[in-house]
Amino acid sequence: MKVLISRPMLERLPVYATYLEKLIETGVNSVSSSKIAKDLKFGEVQVRKELAMVSGTGKPRIGYDAEKLLSDIRIFLGEDKPCEAVIVGAGKLGRALLGYGNFDKVGVKISAAFDIKIPPGRNENVFSLDCFNKYCKEHSVSIGIITVPATAAQTVCDIMIDAGIKAIWNFAPMTLHVPSNIAVINEKLSISLSQLRQQINM
Amino acid sequence: MKVLISRPMLERLPVYATYLEKLIETGVNSVSSSKIAKDLKFGEVQVRKELAMVSGTGKPRIGYDAEKLLSDIRIFLGEDKPCEAVIVGAGKLGRALLGYGNFDKVGVKISAAFDIKIPPGRNENVFSLDCFNKYCKEHSVSIGIITVPATAAQTVCDIMIDAGIKAIWNFAPMTLHVPSNIAVINEKLSISLSQLRQQINM
Repeated sequence: MKVLISRPMLERLPVYATYLEKLIETGVNSVSSSKIAKDLKFGEVQVRKELAMVSGTGKPRIGYDAEKLLSDIRIFLGEDKPCEAVIVGAGKLGRALLGYGNFDKVGVKISAAFDIKIPPGRNENVFSLDCFNKYCKEHSVSIGIITVPATAAQTVCDIMIDAGIKAIWNFAPMTLHVPSNIAVINEKLSISLSQLRQQINM
Repeated sequence: MKVLISRPMLERLPVYATYLEKLIETGVNSVSSSKIAKDLKFGEVQVRKELAMVSGTGKPRIGYDAEKLLSDIRIFLGEDKPCEAVIVGAGKLGRALLGYGNFDKVGVKISAAFDIKIPPGRNENVFSLDCFNKYCKEHSVSIGIITVPATAAQTVCDIMIDAGIKAIWNFAPMTLHVPSNIAVINEKLSISLSQLRQQINM
């Protein structure tokens, strides 16, 4: 399985972006990583390292061009060039994710959901699983989201890989077996509730 | 904000439980932490520490009574005595969580969702926000789940605390301000997609 970029860094990048937007509004053109670290109360070494990953090093004694740095962060996050994602499992959770509009800022567009049986009700962008492979290839889908029960998850995972999907977001409570070039994130919602439940009793 | 028990430990506890169930089925009565560690490929020190937190230390040279240990893990996870949780924000995500049945094993029962306007369609267990405070007090609700937009999240958080809620699971993309006796977990779904998106480009 591929190594993933750290979540804390991916959480901080939008914070840098918002900070830079405000700075640019006030007419500032250049900013050093140490000023950013100080203003945002982040570690200086961390900020320097992360900005270097995204935008190269700043100029000595001047720092970064604020507009260029902001643009590089947005490009890094993929805002300019969204990836297409699809869901398999058009139950309540699958359809909730399909309708969730908050993924544009991380450069992902969820365009469709698939299922063996199409559930009753409004079904915009919900299709039969028979069309899955063709849809993924035509739309160059790179991310697959699994919201089927645990018993069906490995089969769905194999179908996704066969359709050219490179990264899988798995909501089923089980471990998927994937080749080493496929990235997987297991979203364990119940663990968050388990943590909160423990907390109440302390 | 209260310190939370680690997610990795809470992920391992159900693994210990499943392992013990199988062991008991085969007629085994007692088991040492080092055998558990070896069979599950977990670190021995970690297993000893975690089982001691949940069930005290095992007997020298014998180890743990398997049934007692299993029962202690279930009690620790709260399976025997579920906590009641409610949702504010009965949109797609809120209603998906309300209908999600996988939280019993972590000792949480989501019993109702509330909103200012009740959305059209089937609305079992969805109520007006006007009834929120009364409902929470009558049902001794201890966990609140926020699935409203970011602009409304702090108001909802304050309403929850006022209704006696002790732990908050926040899906709104913003930081909540809470007193130090309230536990908060921010569920940042978009960061998972952001991680997968980065991965595709590598």
